[in-house]
Amino acid sequence: MLRRRLLTAAMDPVALGVLAATASGLIETAAAAVAPLAADPALVDDLVSANHILYDQGVVDGFGHVSVRHDKDASRFLLARSMAPALVTADDIMEFDRDGNAIDPRGRAVYLERFIHSEIYKTRPEVKAVVHSHSPAVIPFGVTAVPLMPIYHMSAFLGAGVPVFEIRAATPAPTDMLVSSAELGAALARTLGGANVALMRGHGDVVVGQSLTQVVFRAVYTEINARLEAEALRLGDVNFLSGEEAAKASKVDDAIMGRAWELWKQQARAKH
Amino acid sequence: MLRRRLLTAAMDPVALGVLAATASGLIETAAAAVAPLAADPALVDDLVSANHILYDQGVVDGFGHVSVRHDKDASRFLLARSMAPALVTADDIMEFDRDGNAIDPRGRAVYLERFIHSEIYKTRPEVKAVVHSHSPAVIPFGVTAVPLMPIYHMSAFLGAGVPVFEIRAATPAPTDMLVSSAELGAALARTLGGANVALMRGHGDVVVGQSLTQVVFRAVYTEINARLEAEALRLGDVNFLSGEEAAKASKVDDAIMGRAWELWKQQARAKH
Amino acid sequence: MLRRRLLTAAMDPVALGVLAATASGLIETAAAAVAPLAADPALVDDLVSANHILYDQGVVDGFGHVSVRHDKDASRFLLARSMAPALVTADDIMEFDRDGNAIDPRGRAVYLERFIHSEIYKTRPEVKAVVHSHSPAVIPFGVTAVPLMPIYHMSAFLGAGVPVFEIRAATPAPTDMLVSSAELGAALARTLGGANVALMRGHGDVVVGQSLTQVVFRAVYTEINARLEAEALRLGDVNFLSGEEAAKASKVDDAIMGRAWELWKQQARAKH
Amino acid sequence: MLRRRLLTAAMDPVALGVLAATASGLIETAAAAVAPLAADPALVDDLVSANHILYDQGVVDGFGHVSVRHDKDASRFLLARSMAPALVTADDIMEFDRDGNAIDPRGRAVYLERFIHSEIYKTRPEVKAVVHSHSPAVIPFGVTAVPLMPIYHMSAFLGAGVPVFEIRAATPAPTDMLVSSAELGAALARTLGGANVALMRGHGDVVVGQSLTQVVFRAVYTEINARLEAEALRLGDVNFLSGEEAAKASKVDDAIMGRAWELWKQQARAKH
Repeated sequence: MLRRRLLTAAMDPVALGVLAATASGLIETAAAAVAPLAADPALVDDLVSANHILYDQGVVDGFGHVSVRHDKDASRFLLARSMAPALVTADDIMEFDRDGNAIDPRGRAVYLERFIHSEIYKTRPEVKAVVHSHSPAVIPFGVTAVPLMPIYHMSAFLGAGVPVFEIRAATPAPTDMLVSSAELGAALARTLGGANVALMRGHGDVVVGQSLTQVVFRAVYTEINARLEAEALRLGDVNFLSGEEAAKASKVDDAIMGRAWELWKQQARAKH
Repeated sequence: MLRRRLLTAAMDPVALGVLAATASGLIETAAAAVAPLAADPALVDDLVSANHILYDQGVVDGFGHVSVRHDKDASRFLLARSMAPALVTADDIMEFDRDGNAIDPRGRAVYLERFIHSEIYKTRPEVKAVVHSHSPAVIPFGVTAVPLMPIYHMSAFLGAGVPVFEIRAATPAPTDMLVSSAELGAALARTLGGANVALMRGHGDVVVGQSLTQVVFRAVYTEINARLEAEALRLGDVNFLSGEEAAKASKVDDAIMGRAWELWKQQARAKH
Repeated sequence: MLRRRLLTAAMDPVALGVLAATASGLIETAAAAVAPLAADPALVDDLVSANHILYDQGVVDGFGHVSVRHDKDASRFLLARSMAPALVTADDIMEFDRDGNAIDPRGRAVYLERFIHSEIYKTRPEVKAVVHSHSPAVIPFGVTAVPLMPIYHMSAFLGAGVPVFEIRAATPAPTDMLVSSAELGAALARTLGGANVALMRGHGDVVVGQSLTQVVFRAVYTEINARLEAEALRLGDVNFLSGEEAAKASKVDDAIMGRAWELWKQQARAKH
Repeated sequence: MLRRRLLTAAMDPVALGVLAATASGLIETAAAAVAPLAADPALVDDLVSANHILYDQGVVDGFGHVSVRHDKDASRFLLARSMAPALVTADDIMEFDRDGNAIDPRGRAVYLERFIHSEIYKTRPEVKAVVHSHSPAVIPFGVTAVPLMPIYHMSAFLGAGVPVFEIRAATPAPTDMLVSSAELGAALARTLGGANVALMRGHGDVVVGQSLTQVVFRAVYTEINARLEAEALRLGDVNFLSGEEAAKASKVDDAIMGRAWELWKQQARAKH
């Protein structure tokens, strides 16, 4: 289900290069006729680390992606080219406009599901970072009737509720399960609403945060919570955090999560 | 249950060497009186990587094997000598004819179950690569009545159905569980039919693909699907991919699976 | 829920430095107007190893902490500054008084939950070391009605009983789940009573011992016991150690646990 | 529950050295007044590898031990001094007589449970190697009524039956769970009978083989079988190997297990 967007700005040499690159088949690109804006190198570096950390912590495998809002223009975001997160380097980070078009693609393939990111950034101005993954322990909660709920204070952010996106409800015809259009991205964003995490039936989940540190923390502890909740449910009735406990614990987590980020970043640097 | 095939071409010095080697007991060889054909070194290199990747990803342990059709002669296939997949090098790759006879054995021991490969290649011309393993999470599905079904889009290829091979149905007398003859290989191939994966009761599974990249991708996600499906079934009724969703998602997976192969290959090279 | 304690000894240059450091927000310090006492470097070294071992063995992740009573003054204890245990070095070890006030903070942030340690040391004179963690396999036992019991001789110390701390019973208003005050620490110590381990609902656990070797051994085998007990309960009724068996086995464990400590310490040194 | 055996051969300088070493407390030694016999260095080397492999494969942790019959005198056996298996070197290998007495202790501490080995060697002449461990996945099967049975051909050796040793039946008074005397060792050997594996309630298991290769193979696949059987039982009724299938498959496993040993040994050498 590859989608290509032909440029009308045919005189643009960058755009011409893109057309040449896409001519050979599977590469998918979508370029917007606007000028690129250099992002803060520290932000790019953190985005690279976020890719590696999500792999090291078992949230992503060869697939999945993480983005961050552009620090120079809040309508844009940064996201790696289509590749395995564990291998991402600063050179692989691309810039996208509000509709998910690559701004300076230079022939690089882009993720089919970049619309997950673009449509959430549109509807959630306070969100600064988005993770999409096939987080393994989360998958069973997306295909059964059991809600994901905060089992301990580290996953208190789940207290805001975890809706499940059913792609069959968003589009009448059977799909390939991918959120590969702006329309499907918008439907997912509507399901997410004001929550921090939404599950995607038969697919994975999406996690949002106000920073890369927060979105990575949330993605890791969503995975851990799913594992522990499944374990606990086998023992019997589970005493989850109350709404008030979750709200209060979330604030503490926000204040201390840098401790985990620092550890994970050091480990990622040593490995990658 | 070692089977040896004595060569009648007694004047052939290669064959004589084989006879000498097999005289000392456990080594099992079967040589065909045809000339070897040098395979594409890139294909051999990918087959070595496939061996290592399947080990790294937990599909094989000290046992299991992966083969690929010969690029110069579609009636032949390439497969390592009898050894642990993690230790395979290019020098260990052997050539086999359509009946599973080693073409240039040079005294090397061969896998007892090479007939899994030979018989599937005979009946499935579009299949280019075959994996046989004792993929751990898959074992429980081979010995119970629960069918393996696609829980998410990454394992959509399971939507083609996953039959279970019962060796008791294929042969009247109790066996050692191994598919160690052409007859048993043919029975397994019949059970597999047009599917991508067949489970083997009390043994493991067989996975087929149109390339090494695809067969490795499928073997890895068959293992992951089994783990996640078992988890999900403990939570309650599972909403699997529909047949149409699985068919559509399979096509996307085929287009993007190179992303995982690239990652796994780099990791395998760094480790082995 | 950050709490700061302003010093009245305003002429003390160390205290003044602390005030300056805390002015910039999140850093939490609490300094006592007493002189620091140099601890035995071997004890500090063991405390550093204990931090690393607990990480290597999966008891702590980016969070959790371990303390030891000061060898020069039994009313004091040693504990790292607020950071991930895996990264702790000798320079990060701080000294605390009986009320959990840092004695020579030098602007270093301290753990919000240091009161877990201070209040247990107050009420349990024989306790020389304390671990607080979010030990993953233990979490389900803190939120369900299933008691943690010794499944084998290695976790015989659980035979002394494993109470569950319910923070809702300790304080009327909803909390952020943290034991972040002397009052909550005292309530937790009361729940612990004479036991070796207490679970904390929706949070984690606390483990005590008469040495770092013992507390680390107990923390590791509490995690393992939780995993194995959950597995066993799925098979059917479990035949736990009797009270007498647990008491006798505990004594043997105390005599041989150095064997595990030596292994873990060597591994931690090689890694960190 | 430390047991010391004072030597009556007081003139023996070796024995005197032992007495001096044991004077300082916890070290437990038991020396026989016979001359040591140099074992084949290759056998010692394999015993060292067996220790490391069992650790690498998750069968032992800081505890557990593996022995092999002496190649020069079948009434003796080789076993490491009391230490973590992962750290064992050739210098740590000690020689024991048929009653479990160390022949040339040189002050080295010995395992409290060496009687597991000595008593099995006495009653099972064909047994050449013994593993005792707290193999984690096996523990639940020792404390519930569910029998361990062969789920696939790799663990076909379980088809000989897996009895459970209940120490309460072997001795009237409550114990510390350890098989720390010849009497308890003999009771365990009686429970084992002619089987390849016996579980020990609330403790672990013992595995025997006709070589180090075989006993290590069996110990590893006993652990894996336990994990997979527990998983399968959650799915529903399990179709285990029949007795005849298990007997036949065992013979094949014996012929091919060197493949796993070679892999594990290479990995152990690279790590340790």
